[in-house]
Amino acid sequence: MPTNVVIVGGGFGGMMCAKAMRRTSANITLVDKRNFHLFQPLLYQVATGGLSPANIAAPLRSIFRCQRNVQVLMGTVESFDKANSCVILEDGTQLPFDYLVLATGSTHHYFGRDVDWEPVAPGLKTIEDATVIRRRVLSAFERAERSHDPLEIARLLTFVIVGGGPTGVEMAGSIAELSKQTMKKDFRSINPTTARVILVENSKLVLDRYHESLSIQAGKDLRSMGVEVMNETRLSEIFPKHVVVTQNGRPLTIETETVIWAAGVKASPLGKKLAEAYDLPALLDRSGRVQVEARCSIAEHSNIFVIGDLANFPTHDGKTLPGVAPVAIQQGSYVGKLLNATISGRKCTQPFQYWDKGNMATIGRSHAIVESGRIRLTGKLAWLAWLFIHILYLARFENRMLVVFQWFWNYATRNRTARLITGNEDRHK
Amino acid sequence: MPTNVVIVGGGFGGMMCAKAMRRTSANITLVDKRNFHLFQPLLYQVATGGLSPANIAAPLRSIFRCQRNVQVLMGTVESFDKANSCVILEDGTQLPFDYLVLATGSTHHYFGRDVDWEPVAPGLKTIEDATVIRRRVLSAFERAERSHDPLEIARLLTFVIVGGGPTGVEMAGSIAELSKQTMKKDFRSINPTTARVILVENSKLVLDRYHESLSIQAGKDLRSMGVEVMNETRLSEIFPKHVVVTQNGRPLTIETETVIWAAGVKASPLGKKLAEAYDLPALLDRSGRVQVEARCSIAEHSNIFVIGDLANFPTHDGKTLPGVAPVAIQQGSYVGKLLNATISGRKCTQPFQYWDKGNMATIGRSHAIVESGRIRLTGKLAWLAWLFIHILYLARFENRMLVVFQWFWNYATRNRTARLITGNEDRHK
Repeated sequence: MPTNVVIVGGGFGGMMCAKAMRRTSANITLVDKRNFHLFQPLLYQVATGGLSPANIAAPLRSIFRCQRNVQVLMGTVESFDKANSCVILEDGTQLPFDYLVLATGSTHHYFGRDVDWEPVAPGLKTIEDATVIRRRVLSAFERAERSHDPLEIARLLTFVIVGGGPTGVEMAGSIAELSKQTMKKDFRSINPTTARVILVENSKLVLDRYHESLSIQAGKDLRSMGVEVMNETRLSEIFPKHVVVTQNGRPLTIETETVIWAAGVKASPLGKKLAEAYDLPALLDRSGRVQVEARCSIAEHSNIFVIGDLANFPTHDGKTLPGVAPVAIQQGSYVGKLLNATISGRKCTQPFQYWDKGNMATIGRSHAIVESGRIRLTGKLAWLAWLFIHILYLARFENRMLVVFQWFWNYATRNRTARLITGNEDRHK
Repeated sequence: MPTNVVIVGGGFGGMMCAKAMRRTSANITLVDKRNFHLFQPLLYQVATGGLSPANIAAPLRSIFRCQRNVQVLMGTVESFDKANSCVILEDGTQLPFDYLVLATGSTHHYFGRDVDWEPVAPGLKTIEDATVIRRRVLSAFERAERSHDPLEIARLLTFVIVGGGPTGVEMAGSIAELSKQTMKKDFRSINPTTARVILVENSKLVLDRYHESLSIQAGKDLRSMGVEVMNETRLSEIFPKHVVVTQNGRPLTIETETVIWAAGVKASPLGKKLAEAYDLPALLDRSGRVQVEARCSIAEHSNIFVIGDLANFPTHDGKTLPGVAPVAIQQGSYVGKLLNATISGRKCTQPFQYWDKGNMATIGRSHAIVESGRIRLTGKLAWLAWLFIHILYLARFENRMLVVFQWFWNYATRNRTARLITGNEDRHK
C-alpha cells in the first residue's frame, strides 16, 4: 500500500514540500482553505492598487496539474485523530496519514484587543484583507472629495499605519506614493498630496531587525517620501474617528478614520489543535508556535512535521528562526527531501540547517534596504536588487510575466491601474 | 457664471458624453456609485477566471485626470429636486444643474421572482456579480472533488445558464472551455470534462436577434464545444439542489446547484425617480426605460437627457434601439456635442441618428458570429474580428496592453490565471 502524506497549507512551506516530493511513490494530499497559493510579499501592492489579486496568486491545481501524486483539496482542518492517525476536515472527512506536514502560517495578533480592533484596523494577510484595505484607503479620498468640512477632510486624509516592520513600512511608503504621486491630479476639491501618512512604531527605529545604519536610512527614506514616522510611540486606543497614541508617556490624539494594522502576528490556531489532540501541553511556545526538533518534527512523533511561520525552530544561539518566506521555503524543501529518503527506505539523519541569504525590505519606488552577510545596500541599487529577487521568486508562478509587465508599466507611468473600490461592506461608512 | 452639467453614470454613455465636452467651458460633474468605468462586454471573462477585475475596469479619476472641467464624485443619486433643478445624493448633497444627463443603464430582471431567484441565480452586471459567479462555479468543482457520492458529484458538475442571448452564450461557452480544456488535468477524483453545461433558452434558437443562419451556426458551435442547448425551454422554478424547466409543456427536473441568470434586464430605477420628481407618469415604457425624443431629451424638458440602456429611443420602424454598448457610446457623444453647441450659443437641431455598424457575439475560443449589413461571418474569422474590435475599444483604457497580453497568454496555454475563489459568502455552502 502506498504511503499517505498529508500536507496542510499551500503557502511557501507546504507548496515547496509537495514539489520536493514529485518523484516519490507516496500519495500526497495537500489541504488548503483557499484554492490558490498566495505570494504574500507583494500583497501590499494589491492593498494599494498596484497589482490585481490574480497577479500574485496561482491556483494550487495549476501548480500541481502535472504532479500526479498530489491531490489538492480545498478544505479546513477541524481536528486530528491521534488513535487513527487521521486529519479531520470541517465536514467530517477523514484523511489518514503516515506522515503529516503542518504549514498553516500565521495570522494577525492585536495583543488581546482582537475583538475591538480587528474590525477597525484591518491587517494584511489575505487577498480579502488587501481588498478591504484598498477599499478603505480609496474610499477615504472619495469621501474627502465630497466633503465641505475642512476638519472632516483633514481627518479623512490621515492614514495611520501601526507597526514599523516590513509590512508597515511598505504600506506607509505605498500610501504616500499613491497620494503624493499617482493621484496627485485626480481630484478637484481636495489636494491629495496634503494627505498625512503616519507610521507608528514602538521602538527607536523602523525595521529594527536590520543593521542600525540601514534602519536609520529607511527612516530617512520614508520621511523623504512624506511619511511621518513616529518612533518610540505606542498605540493605546482606536476610536471610529481618532486614535490615541502614547509618546514619551504622554497621550496624543490623531484624528483619522483609516487605521492599518501591521504590528503583530501570532501562529495559526492549528498548532493548538495539534497539541490538544496529541496531549502535548508543552508543545507550543508563548506565541502559539509549535516547538520542533532538529528535523522539523515534533517531540515523540517523528512522522509529524511543522514548518514555516507555525514552527518555532531553535537556533544555536538560543533564538528561533524568523517567520519569513525563505525559512518556510527551505524547511518545505528539507522535509520533502527527508520524506523522499524515508519512504524509499533510506536513512536521513541530517538536521535542518537554515541558509540565511540575507534580508531585504522595500520602502517605495527606488528605495529599499538589503542586508546579506557583510553587504549592506540602500537606495536605488537595493531597490533593483529587491525587484530582481522578487521577479526570480515569482518565476515559480505562471503569471510572472504579467506582474513584471504591470510593474514596469506602473514604474514608467507612476500609475496604479488596479485602484478599484469593490465589495459592499463600508462603501458608505 | 459657468454652466453646470451633471452626468449620472460613468458607463459607456456617461463617459463618452463627458469626453465629448472636453473643450466646453461648463462645469461637469460625473456621479457614479463606483469609482471605475467597467468594460462590461468582457465581464464574462472575469466570471470564468480568464481576466482580473482590474483588467476591464479603469478608475474614472484616471480617465478624467487631465480633463480639468470634469469633477468625478462617487455617490448614489437619491432623488431630483424639480423646483431648484438639483440632483440630490444619498447624503443630502445637492448638485444644481443647467443640463442633466442620465446614463445609469440596466440591471437584472427576474420577471417578478427577484426575491427568490436573485440570491440563487446571480446575474452578470457588476464586478461583484462576476466574482460571485467565479466563486460558485469554481467551488462546485472543489466540492465535487471532495465528494464520494456519485449523485452529488453529478449535481455539482451540472451548470445551468438561463437565457440564450449574448451573455448566456458567452457564459456557457466559457464554462464549457473551463471544464473541458483548462481544468481537464487539474483533479484526481473527478473528471471535469464530464461536467454538463446546459443553456436554457425560451425561443427556437440562441442569439435569435441575428440572422437565422448565424443563430443556427452559434447553436452548432455551442454543441461542438460540449454545451447542451435546450431551445424552446422555459425555466419554471429554482430550488437549492435542482431546477425545473418546461419543455413542450412538460416539466423536466435538472439536478444542479449552480444556476446563472442571463435571461432578462430591466432599466435602472433612476428613471422611475425622474418620472416621479417631474410628475411625468407617461415617461416610462413597460420595462422602466425613459422615453426620449429625437435629441435624446425628455418631453417638456429639453435640458434633461437620457441615454444608453436607460433610454427608450424610438426608431423609424416603430421599434426602439437595442440596449447595446454602441448605442450608448453614440448617444453619449451626440449629447456631449449637442451641449457643446448649445452652451457656446450655437443652435443644434440635428436629431440623434444611430449608425448601426453591426453586431457580434463570441461563443468561445475561435468561435463567434458577426453581422454587419449584408456581411455575415462565423468561425475563426468572426472570432478574430470580434477580438480585433474589442481590442480597439479597449484602446480607451490605460491597461489595454495587459488585457491583450493576458488574452494571448490564455489562448496560447489554454490556461486561465485568475481562477481565484475569493470572498466568504458561500465558501462552504
